[in-house]
Amino acid sequence: MQLGMVGLGRMGANLVRRLIQGGHECVVYDVNPKAIEALEAEGATGARTLAEFAAALRPPRTAWIMVPAGLTGQTVDDLATHFAGDDVIIDGGNSYYRDDIHRARDLAAAGIHYVDVGTSGGVFGLERGFCLMIGGEAEVVGRLEPLFETIAPGIGSIPRTPGRSGEPAQAEKGYLHCGPNGAGHFVKMVHNGIEYGMMAAFAEGLAVLDKANIGREAAEHNAETAPLGDPEYYQYDLDTAAIAEVWRRGSVVSSWLLDLTATALHEDPALAEFGGRVSDSGEGRWTVLAAVEEGVPAHVLTASLYERFSSRGEGLFADKLLSAMRKQFGGHAEQHKA
Amino acid sequence: MQLGMVGLGRMGANLVRRLIQGGHECVVYDVNPKAIEALEAEGATGARTLAEFAAALRPPRTAWIMVPAGLTGQTVDDLATHFAGDDVIIDGGNSYYRDDIHRARDLAAAGIHYVDVGTSGGVFGLERGFCLMIGGEAEVVGRLEPLFETIAPGIGSIPRTPGRSGEPAQAEKGYLHCGPNGAGHFVKMVHNGIEYGMMAAFAEGLAVLDKANIGREAAEHNAETAPLGDPEYYQYDLDTAAIAEVWRRGSVVSSWLLDLTATALHEDPALAEFGGRVSDSGEGRWTVLAAVEEGVPAHVLTASLYERFSSRGEGLFADKLLSAMRKQFGGHAEQHKA
Amino acid sequence: MQLGMVGLGRMGANLVRRLIQGGHECVVYDVNPKAIEALEAEGATGARTLAEFAAALRPPRTAWIMVPAGLTGQTVDDLATHFAGDDVIIDGGNSYYRDDIHRARDLAAAGIHYVDVGTSGGVFGLERGFCLMIGGEAEVVGRLEPLFETIAPGIGSIPRTPGRSGEPAQAEKGYLHCGPNGAGHFVKMVHNGIEYGMMAAFAEGLAVLDKANIGREAAEHNAETAPLGDPEYYQYDLDTAAIAEVWRRGSVVSSWLLDLTATALHEDPALAEFGGRVSDSGEGRWTVLAAVEEGVPAHVLTASLYERFSSRGEGLFADKLLSAMRKQFGGHAEQHKA
Amino acid sequence: MQLGMVGLGRMGANLVRRLIQGGHECVVYDVNPKAIEALEAEGATGARTLAEFAAALRPPRTAWIMVPAGLTGQTVDDLATHFAGDDVIIDGGNSYYRDDIHRARDLAAAGIHYVDVGTSGGVFGLERGFCLMIGGEAEVVGRLEPLFETIAPGIGSIPRTPGRSGEPAQAEKGYLHCGPNGAGHFVKMVHNGIEYGMMAAFAEGLAVLDKANIGREAAEHNAETAPLGDPEYYQYDLDTAAIAEVWRRGSVVSSWLLDLTATALHEDPALAEFGGRVSDSGEGRWTVLAAVEEGVPAHVLTASLYERFSSRGEGLFADKLLSAMRKQFGGHAEQHKA
Repeated sequence: MQLGMVGLGRMGANLVRRLIQGGHECVVYDVNPKAIEALEAEGATGARTLAEFAAALRPPRTAWIMVPAGLTGQTVDDLATHFAGDDVIIDGGNSYYRDDIHRARDLAAAGIHYVDVGTSGGVFGLERGFCLMIGGEAEVVGRLEPLFETIAPGIGSIPRTPGRSGEPAQAEKGYLHCGPNGAGHFVKMVHNGIEYGMMAAFAEGLAVLDKANIGREAAEHNAETAPLGDPEYYQYDLDTAAIAEVWRRGSVVSSWLLDLTATALHEDPALAEFGGRVSDSGEGRWTVLAAVEEGVPAHVLTASLYERFSSRGEGLFADKLLSAMRKQFGGHAEQHKA
Repeated sequence: MQLGMVGLGRMGANLVRRLIQGGHECVVYDVNPKAIEALEAEGATGARTLAEFAAALRPPRTAWIMVPAGLTGQTVDDLATHFAGDDVIIDGGNSYYRDDIHRARDLAAAGIHYVDVGTSGGVFGLERGFCLMIGGEAEVVGRLEPLFETIAPGIGSIPRTPGRSGEPAQAEKGYLHCGPNGAGHFVKMVHNGIEYGMMAAFAEGLAVLDKANIGREAAEHNAETAPLGDPEYYQYDLDTAAIAEVWRRGSVVSSWLLDLTATALHEDPALAEFGGRVSDSGEGRWTVLAAVEEGVPAHVLTASLYERFSSRGEGLFADKLLSAMRKQFGGHAEQHKA
Repeated sequence: MQLGMVGLGRMGANLVRRLIQGGHECVVYDVNPKAIEALEAEGATGARTLAEFAAALRPPRTAWIMVPAGLTGQTVDDLATHFAGDDVIIDGGNSYYRDDIHRARDLAAAGIHYVDVGTSGGVFGLERGFCLMIGGEAEVVGRLEPLFETIAPGIGSIPRTPGRSGEPAQAEKGYLHCGPNGAGHFVKMVHNGIEYGMMAAFAEGLAVLDKANIGREAAEHNAETAPLGDPEYYQYDLDTAAIAEVWRRGSVVSSWLLDLTATALHEDPALAEFGGRVSDSGEGRWTVLAAVEEGVPAHVLTASLYERFSSRGEGLFADKLLSAMRKQFGGHAEQHKA
Repeated sequence: MQLGMVGLGRMGANLVRRLIQGGHECVVYDVNPKAIEALEAEGATGARTLAEFAAALRPPRTAWIMVPAGLTGQTVDDLATHFAGDDVIIDGGNSYYRDDIHRARDLAAAGIHYVDVGTSGGVFGLERGFCLMIGGEAEVVGRLEPLFETIAPGIGSIPRTPGRSGEPAQAEKGYLHCGPNGAGHFVKMVHNGIEYGMMAAFAEGLAVLDKANIGREAAEHNAETAPLGDPEYYQYDLDTAAIAEVWRRGSVVSSWLLDLTATALHEDPALAEFGGRVSDSGEGRWTVLAAVEEGVPAHVLTASLYERFSSRGEGLFADKLLSAMRKQFGGHAEQHKA
């Protein structure tokens, strides 16, 4: 099939590469001409403007937009001026699913179809394939299946889920039509929410291991710090890199995130490269908003989001106020780091 | 009654003052002679050694120990060498209730009675009276009631709880025999756990108010930070000091901690004096340990404790690991503060 | 001053009573004629339709709407059809502050002013006065001050915050103009968020006390339940009603919510009347949404909201899934209550 | 090598099977004769008493104890009466690491060595191999390596961590000597703590997906329940089984726990078999205790533990108290399920 790609960053470029490798024909556009040239060298057809891009696509056209979330809306609008009835615009970025609902409604007035695709796979997607969570009209999504099948990992070497047999289901091939518009990004949003929670579970647990030798440190003795009750129980100098490694085989927590953790700790157990300011890019927040609106308790997903806020110093006002209250009722002066 | 006080820090000294004002006779001891002299000037009998202290008390002796938690054990042991059967040692500090159980058992072998008293009131206790939570043998606690009655606030001007009438119950006078040894500090421990949770509720809520004008700030646009969906809804420059003040009258959150918050914010709404490193002095931790061992969910009390840990940078390893994972799977470089 | 009240439920009726007692003139309307009659008997002027209501008010009119949150929008719209330029509509209910922004904008087109008032005080407001958090144009809010001053508690017997002197500030009288439209309900929203957190702190802490005798229970011995490590430390039969009572005097956690807790536990320490399904009426959710959008960590406020969700069984799907996973990896059968 | 196994439940029996398959010689004992017979049929040497068991082992003996945590202490003590200097007792169960420290110290007096082994792998361990986390003296652990190598999964088909090359490290073969006594169970404890957190992340996220159609339900309208702001955004009927399946290939959350989740949801998306009472078997609690004592914030691990407590109704007293407070201040009657 023919597909146009708008946005040739790491993700967009790798999608194009997988499609070309899979025998599809790609028209590519980016604001950065160098990004276009790179893919032309790999067999893609470059377009220097959106008009040229639209002209290079055969109706009914299919365009995949892969730009930062803040630019998606404008890009969809711009592209729509060059598209016509029965053309399809796919948003493969990290959009808020509510925006999908609005965009699909707006484009429908012009007969243009909209498909939202949550895309997971990170820097490894080119090789492993990307996991695709898709929202849109069933007929349109069906029409695009050859593209999704190429981008996704396929059933591969991963053992089938017990009870599944015969012709692999769509989900087993690594892509899924989840529902109407917004459903793709809704599922991707929660996917990332879960990812935050899993990451935090590893981070917290390894932090407990990292500090397991606290009993060897000289105890501080003052009225402001709780002394460690039993120092003898915290005398372990643990090798967190080796521990992450050993869990990779046979343990209940084995996972891709554990593999990455093992890699990071093997590179540098002190993680000296990092300052500990952890970004959040939207999906974690939106997952919490959904949990709150649905009335579903989500302690873990929310705590993992808030830990990221705290890592960036966003808890400072509250912490100052706590110190202020302590001074008021107990005359406690704030302790400073030794 | 006659009482000996060991430890003449702010709390110990104020207890002595309330007792003297209430007509009791106080023998006082401290490692710091100046602290002794100060109270001698106010009518107490000073002792320069524990032996002298014990000799100045008439059997059956009653001594109240008010020293930092880390020194209580040694002080009890030292005092016991000078005490005899039927004497009473009261620990009024912030001991772990389990230590009370052990100490009471040890002292019982020598016929010495032990009473644990959780004492709340902070720097205002001299004026308001101290709230006392007491553990120990009923007969012994009963013998000491005149002391507790003087130290506690009394029924005062606080309206009686609906349904209570007649002779005020012990609890209405501001002290309570909670149960056998350890019960006093167990109740005090949970009291402080609740205090942590209430403080955090105010701190978090006021932080949300403090940042209610975030919609006016220039939005950052990058793939690592979630943009604010609707800046128009966050355009409020709120006066947190005035808000804390208005809640003091008629609102559901009116409380002593709110009074203190209003004071702190009135002094300086920017809380510039504070760095935001919040101490924890044991009871919050012990409350969480008890919740876990009892199998009682205590999300709020625990989160308020962990926020204090985070305020002191104890989440750093975990945060670095999160950044490291993000780099591994998505090639995300850590963002630095603008 | 003259004020019209729409909605004569408990809150609306009590506001009218306070206003009448304060010498103001009240026109009242409700869909329930009996509610009108009751207040007519106390000196209010009843109106049987909104048209009659509007006609009974002298321009520039002032109407206070006190209806359930779900009905406020329609009521504002209906009333606006009878109102004219420079009239004022006050929403004193529990509206979402974003709705205030929209409503104020819509009414401004017709020259009608809108004021949002967050009102705290519950069933005790008639006697104690209501704490008022106000959003709207400064000139309009200023015009209404005589009403707010009457409804609010006034400076009363509550000690002034140290450092405050001279003529009492607005906040000290129990009402506060917080900012432009929405600011009143924004502050009230966070007030309730804090209230959730404080309530949860008390509830969790008292639950830890309530279960302090778990060491006396026969331990269950199976691979699915963690045995209690040290039963000797959990042997306390604590009187939670007395403990709540003793904290009311002199302790750091003294507060109105503690007073109410003491009342409830004195009535019935077993709380047998309650099933433990805890409602949430919006403000707690909105506070969490604001915290997430502002990027402010709010572990405690959020956990207290989620505990309410869980209390209503909203965690069931997740819990079933946890049991299902445990069965998959460990062959663990779910344990049933003894 | 020769190994004796005490405790032939699922885990113990499977360990024996892997050892026999690996060419080791096994002596087996259990209180249940049938369990002994079953393994005799597979090549093990059965012993009917601990004395017989000890006699069948050649000095220096090696025994692996695999019994429920509550019975381990007694079993170690009993076995020790039959063992002599330089013999080794391995505890492969889910013991608290502090007990390891005490047991090792006690056994050392008799010259007996103690090794603690945290064992992960569940019902799949026989086939996949068990992940082993080991604590003890280096010389003794070294002596036992042939056994650990057989029980563990080995380097297998799992890709090596980037940067690792040459002879596989111990951790890459699926077992790790973590440190002195207790270190094995300490690491296993935190492993399970992480497992709780990961499980909760999946459970909460899938619960948010499961309820994504809440906007289609008739809204309740009353003052006690927050109405859903935008029902149009919650209109998705999602297939959670297919979603879990699609994430298994190429997504960031791919993991063994996800595989199990996909299996469970494929078997029955309604999870009707389960009541949602989730057990906890100690390690999650101990992980939280360690986090608290180390002063490391562990919001996620703790919340996942508390969710299990709540699932078993342990939050009921707190929830009743919340309802009681709401009734006190607002006259709110508790809502009952429709």
